[in-house]
Amino acid sequence: MRVTVSRKAHFNAAHRLYRADWDDAKNESTFGKCSNEYFHGHNYELIVHVTGEINPETGYVMDMKVLRDLIKSEVEDAFDHKNLNVQVPEFKNLIPTAENIVVVIYNKLRPHLETQQDLEVVLYETPRNFVKYNGK
Amino acid sequence: MRVTVSRKAHFNAAHRLYRADWDDAKNESTFGKCSNEYFHGHNYELIVHVTGEINPETGYVMDMKVLRDLIKSEVEDAFDHKNLNVQVPEFKNLIPTAENIVVVIYNKLRPHLETQQDLEVVLYETPRNFVKYNGK
Amino acid sequence: MRVTVSRKAHFNAAHRLYRADWDDAKNESTFGKCSNEYFHGHNYELIVHVTGEINPETGYVMDMKVLRDLIKSEVEDAFDHKNLNVQVPEFKNLIPTAENIVVVIYNKLRPHLETQQDLEVVLYETPRNFVKYNGK
Amino acid sequence: MRVTVSRKAHFNAAHRLYRADWDDAKNESTFGKCSNEYFHGHNYELIVHVTGEINPETGYVMDMKVLRDLIKSEVEDAFDHKNLNVQVPEFKNLIPTAENIVVVIYNKLRPHLETQQDLEVVLYETPRNFVKYNGK
Amino acid sequence: MRVTVSRKAHFNAAHRLYRADWDDAKNESTFGKCSNEYFHGHNYELIVHVTGEINPETGYVMDMKVLRDLIKSEVEDAFDHKNLNVQVPEFKNLIPTAENIVVVIYNKLRPHLETQQDLEVVLYETPRNFVKYNGK
Amino acid sequence: MRVTVSRKAHFNAAHRLYRADWDDAKNESTFGKCSNEYFHGHNYELIVHVTGEINPETGYVMDMKVLRDLIKSEVEDAFDHKNLNVQVPEFKNLIPTAENIVVVIYNKLRPHLETQQDLEVVLYETPRNFVKYNGK
Repeated sequence: MRVTVSRKAHFNAAHRLYRADWDDAKNESTFGKCSNEYFHGHNYELIVHVTGEINPETGYVMDMKVLRDLIKSEVEDAFDHKNLNVQVPEFKNLIPTAENIVVVIYNKLRPHLETQQDLEVVLYETPRNFVKYNGK
Repeated sequence: MRVTVSRKAHFNAAHRLYRADWDDAKNESTFGKCSNEYFHGHNYELIVHVTGEINPETGYVMDMKVLRDLIKSEVEDAFDHKNLNVQVPEFKNLIPTAENIVVVIYNKLRPHLETQQDLEVVLYETPRNFVKYNGK
Repeated sequence: MRVTVSRKAHFNAAHRLYRADWDDAKNESTFGKCSNEYFHGHNYELIVHVTGEINPETGYVMDMKVLRDLIKSEVEDAFDHKNLNVQVPEFKNLIPTAENIVVVIYNKLRPHLETQQDLEVVLYETPRNFVKYNGK
Repeated sequence: MRVTVSRKAHFNAAHRLYRADWDDAKNESTFGKCSNEYFHGHNYELIVHVTGEINPETGYVMDMKVLRDLIKSEVEDAFDHKNLNVQVPEFKNLIPTAENIVVVIYNKLRPHLETQQDLEVVLYETPRNFVKYNGK
Repeated sequence: MRVTVSRKAHFNAAHRLYRADWDDAKNESTFGKCSNEYFHGHNYELIVHVTGEINPETGYVMDMKVLRDLIKSEVEDAFDHKNLNVQVPEFKNLIPTAENIVVVIYNKLRPHLETQQDLEVVLYETPRNFVKYNGK
Repeated sequence: MRVTVSRKAHFNAAHRLYRADWDDAKNESTFGKCSNEYFHGHNYELIVHVTGEINPETGYVMDMKVLRDLIKSEVEDAFDHKNLNVQVPEFKNLIPTAENIVVVIYNKLRPHLETQQDLEVVLYETPRNFVKYNGK
């Protein structure tokens, strides 16, 4: 009897999409306005899904307060009000596209969950654009 | 050609999380503010997903009005404006965590669907906390 | 140049609508399911609007973090995960309808704002029912 | 490392649900108010999910601007501000239920994606009724 | 002590914007795709605000169930699943723009409220376009 | 008979809150994480309200397509995917707080409307923080 518990969170950050090994024209044609050298930013909305067995003693798959605090320490404290390109080590050599950010978040959270639990992460970059990763 | 049809509904209810066989300190340390002896409450938002073949004659997997009425008779009439711990028999000996509530709702709806149809139930306890169960 | 700054917050609580000086039939005919003696509950969503002059030095009407902390100390800490009828003194002799709750919240916040600032409070009892009060 | 990228879009359209080979009584008993001979309409909200490998050079599964333009040319230009029964060829002999519309949209988009990419389409007919199809 | 109570509702309808006394070119240049002769449609979301004194006996400005039933009988029953141009008498000689619809709804509800109560009506034609009228 | 027509739009941008004439400690104590020297960013959601008389010939207060295009040329083209501090001239000597941004947007839109029309602008910096200005 596996149930999924889900928690929403958010953080605000600046980023730009570009490759230093490409010239401006190629960056512009690939990433458009997102390659703006002075950065732009987003309110990232995050949904973390954890699937596991219900503990019959507590009726919890996982205490939501523990999940909330895990998201805070691993994601919000690391990304919120930051410039992802400049201030977040994982993106020193990785373009901070929504796809790459969601994989980074998954990899930061995964070690803190039990082996039998499944993890899926959804990240909204804007209300109309979002991505999802579950480690498969 | 299996399609999923989904219907949103909601109900308001009071509950508390605690175990009579634990002392207050253990209830408090496990369930925090949710163990308040005088109860608190939520606007529960419910999404019911039914997956099945499209009936070629009607173009329906399932008549949404039938699904709406099923949710009303099985869930809303039983839970809305109720105290889950005191007034809903399923929670007499089961802690009404979101996880346990979603399993109870699944079990109430499942017998009313066709064998070939799949059911998944999502329950929002707050806009930031939600759970999902599909019988697996 | 007066600008309105607005902050959303929320709290969960149990309540019931009834008058001790009325019999059950009159309570039931007036308040319907809301008079359930074992209580029901809601996720109350709160929006606080403060209107005032922009401080030319900071560009702020009011620091949103100060507003957030004021809402927390005056409203969330007092109402969240509580039974309004039983555990919140303001409702000992006042029916906790949405209308009365929004007036109580206004009266708790008003003394903490500057005289020249206007206050308006919006309270959602459910996603479809909400109330507003601005002291007039 | 497969990631899902998702894009929301919308279109407005009129439709009615009925079968010319049924009499009015049977159409009415099956489709209710939706069989109104003068049509009614909806704001259809659409979510398109594309799952595939991240391109390590760009950090993209698929350029969201390309996905946005594909949805525009295949769905919005064909359906927006149209009468689905009268003006959209796919529904000349197919009842425009939400289920049938989502399958038609899937079939219009599928050929434009890479073979290794998975497609899932979600269509909201109203904020409370929605459907999903992924080709399986 | 005047408080505003608000209630959300919705209805689906078909319409077109055109004037019979204009030729097609002028209708097209003025109303664009909205003049489509075969109609299109919307999920109209409605918010009704009623402002008045709190009744000290009940704590209500107005019983929300009464407001809900009034909206149902005056608006939903008259407009839902209808073709506004063809089936709603108020629009026989009035273009069903959002502006005209919101004034019609205001005029239908106003006589049912007390003189001392204020009424404001908000109508969403799409999630991005909406209108408001309060009789002034 | 004055009706308000409203249109939602959005833009993404980077910014930071700080004063060059203050030292880092004072900027930090006043603006907190928002003073991060490498910038952060937001998805700004914008609502523009225009109030005026309904044109009896068209049933419009203002053509929504004209309003949409005005918002695009005056706001989205100027602010979207930009660094407000560095790339938007209005903020060369003005701190880009939400309050100051909403006043700048109001001042850019106001000259394009008729004298008899009223304008109000709402700007969401995050889903929980927003501001409003109407020129008074």
